[in-house]
Amino acid sequence: MKVEGANVLIEANAAMNGGDGPQSYSQNSSFQKAGLEAVKEILQKEIRDKFDVVKPSSNKSLIIKIADFGCSTGPNTFHAVQIILEAIQQKLQSETLNSQEPEFQVFFNDLVTNDFNTLFASLPPKRQYYAGAVPGSFHDVVLPKSSLHFAYSAFSLNWLSKLPREIIDKNSPAWNEGMILYSSKRKDVLGAYAVQFADDFESFLCARKQELVSCGLLSVLVSGVPNGTCFSETSAGNILFVYLFGLIHKDKVDSFNLPVYFPSLKEIKAVVEKNGDFSIEKMEILPNPTYQPKVPDLKKRAISMRAVYEGILSTHFGSEFVDELFELFCKKLDETERAPFLNSEEKKSIVLFVLLKLKPSPH
Amino acid sequence: MKVEGANVLIEANAAMNGGDGPQSYSQNSSFQKAGLEAVKEILQKEIRDKFDVVKPSSNKSLIIKIADFGCSTGPNTFHAVQIILEAIQQKLQSETLNSQEPEFQVFFNDLVTNDFNTLFASLPPKRQYYAGAVPGSFHDVVLPKSSLHFAYSAFSLNWLSKLPREIIDKNSPAWNEGMILYSSKRKDVLGAYAVQFADDFESFLCARKQELVSCGLLSVLVSGVPNGTCFSETSAGNILFVYLFGLIHKDKVDSFNLPVYFPSLKEIKAVVEKNGDFSIEKMEILPNPTYQPKVPDLKKRAISMRAVYEGILSTHFGSEFVDELFELFCKKLDETERAPFLNSEEKKSIVLFVLLKLKPSPH
Repeated sequence: MKVEGANVLIEANAAMNGGDGPQSYSQNSSFQKAGLEAVKEILQKEIRDKFDVVKPSSNKSLIIKIADFGCSTGPNTFHAVQIILEAIQQKLQSETLNSQEPEFQVFFNDLVTNDFNTLFASLPPKRQYYAGAVPGSFHDVVLPKSSLHFAYSAFSLNWLSKLPREIIDKNSPAWNEGMILYSSKRKDVLGAYAVQFADDFESFLCARKQELVSCGLLSVLVSGVPNGTCFSETSAGNILFVYLFGLIHKDKVDSFNLPVYFPSLKEIKAVVEKNGDFSIEKMEILPNPTYQPKVPDLKKRAISMRAVYEGILSTHFGSEFVDELFELFCKKLDETERAPFLNSEEKKSIVLFVLLKLKPSPH
Repeated sequence: MKVEGANVLIEANAAMNGGDGPQSYSQNSSFQKAGLEAVKEILQKEIRDKFDVVKPSSNKSLIIKIADFGCSTGPNTFHAVQIILEAIQQKLQSETLNSQEPEFQVFFNDLVTNDFNTLFASLPPKRQYYAGAVPGSFHDVVLPKSSLHFAYSAFSLNWLSKLPREIIDKNSPAWNEGMILYSSKRKDVLGAYAVQFADDFESFLCARKQELVSCGLLSVLVSGVPNGTCFSETSAGNILFVYLFGLIHKDKVDSFNLPVYFPSLKEIKAVVEKNGDFSIEKMEILPNPTYQPKVPDLKKRAISMRAVYEGILSTHFGSEFVDELFELFCKKLDETERAPFLNSEEKKSIVLFVLLKLKPSPH
């Protein structure tokens, strides 16, 4: 992912932590897993209701193609693929009792910098599909035209492709001074982030439009907020994390912004409708899957955040800074465990599920 | 790759050296590159003459699928793919002036332990194809049925999927005592290696038969020997390498055998004809592409051998042994540079090229 600074163009490694060590994404993605569990039933039901495929002529076998955009290193991507595959199998079995068994081909997509070696090493050995990886930004077309039956993306669209130019420009009124993320206090900064999210989601839809077959399905999961709520009013853990920057290195706060955004369902809907190529088959707000009145394991939560954010932070600040930051983060989490503010607003952080269908082309 | 021992089953990492450092395969594969250069013209001509594809119905775009089986980490696989792609483009342009431009999808295959991260990082940025990786043994089916138009494999079938059981069994008359590879002196060992190669090539053909479309092409390059010649009568460098094992660790010689084989064109032909699913479109013996009366850079040659064999050697013996072995190898190469035996037989080492076409299925 390229993140443009005001005066310099920096390459930000926004891939999740590779490998399978104690700080890897593959060992610390239980939030994302819980999100998937929450959506499993809806996803299965929707596929049974909405999945449709044109059968090939009699002697040709049917090859169903599924892709996960922003798959990271696993294991969540394998769970998701299995849920989708089984639902499609059920749907097809109910329709085509006498015809040939379909074959499945699954494409795992993420940035070129993703650790695909770890992904491949952990592929389920008894899988019912041919596995392939297609590296590259999902804002570009990464698969042949009209070749994909089901596109899936979970928690990847929360990452912006670049920072809004105005928030990193010292001469702009929307310069995000003293902060590394938007908040409800700065409407201009929030607005710039929102526009960038909309642009990114639009380019994602344009790329998937090229790849999907007519009436192909696109399922998107993102971390989001209730309509009319800003991220800074939720997820106290993240606010704390952001706030720590100022404590450690005041001078570094102005040189860095996190390219992440948490949209509302209203914003998602607006982009899809403006784009016009997809019909909205289902939109659903899921409760925060990890919300509990007492957060059980704050240390685990800190490591989980680290697995996600270490890449981009160490690219910009170096790995020593990251060690320091997360040590302080753990300490603060521990201190504030009994403080009411940490959990009081947490329930406002939600997961958004959208199922879209590519409209048939007019000719 | 699984290599079966007499009493133990060991996992041998037969993937080439990963990364792009000074001892990596990607920096030390000039022999394989020269082999590709030697075959470029024939490959282009054959594709222009023999490539044939069923055009899809008018409104569907044509997606040509190419796969390289045993691609390693590059850059040779990218050169090969480009040669094949351009030849297919030329062929199609001459036939279908008015129809839609075809799209290309290229699948890079190698063992799960291959360094795909390095492969992806070095993908040509301005490529004319969608790139994908399909990990797994090429003795298994790794792509959907009847989906592949052109299969390619260079110097990968020289690696056996396992060692012949009898050569590692102390109670067998064909036990390969005191050696780590076959030679012309032990016909029983040579025979066991030859049978294993034939079995492996047969399972490779069976898997490709499933994946290729009717009349799809399969192009194979292997390091080989003239009919009736044994590898031990050629390539003095390799003999020296094998001989060194005895010098360093006499005790280790009996615990290890290299799972590599260098077939003749006659052997290749026999397997294809027995299999029966492919027609032989072209068979060609190419001269050893790196043969020169005076080998110019022996050190480079040693590093190139190391890039290929380090994985399997260090899995079995540890990395210290490999350092020691290649130091001695360099020293010996240097000493024998002026000795006549090193180069006198070298020209007998050749490259074999075969182009096969999948016969149309009877129904």
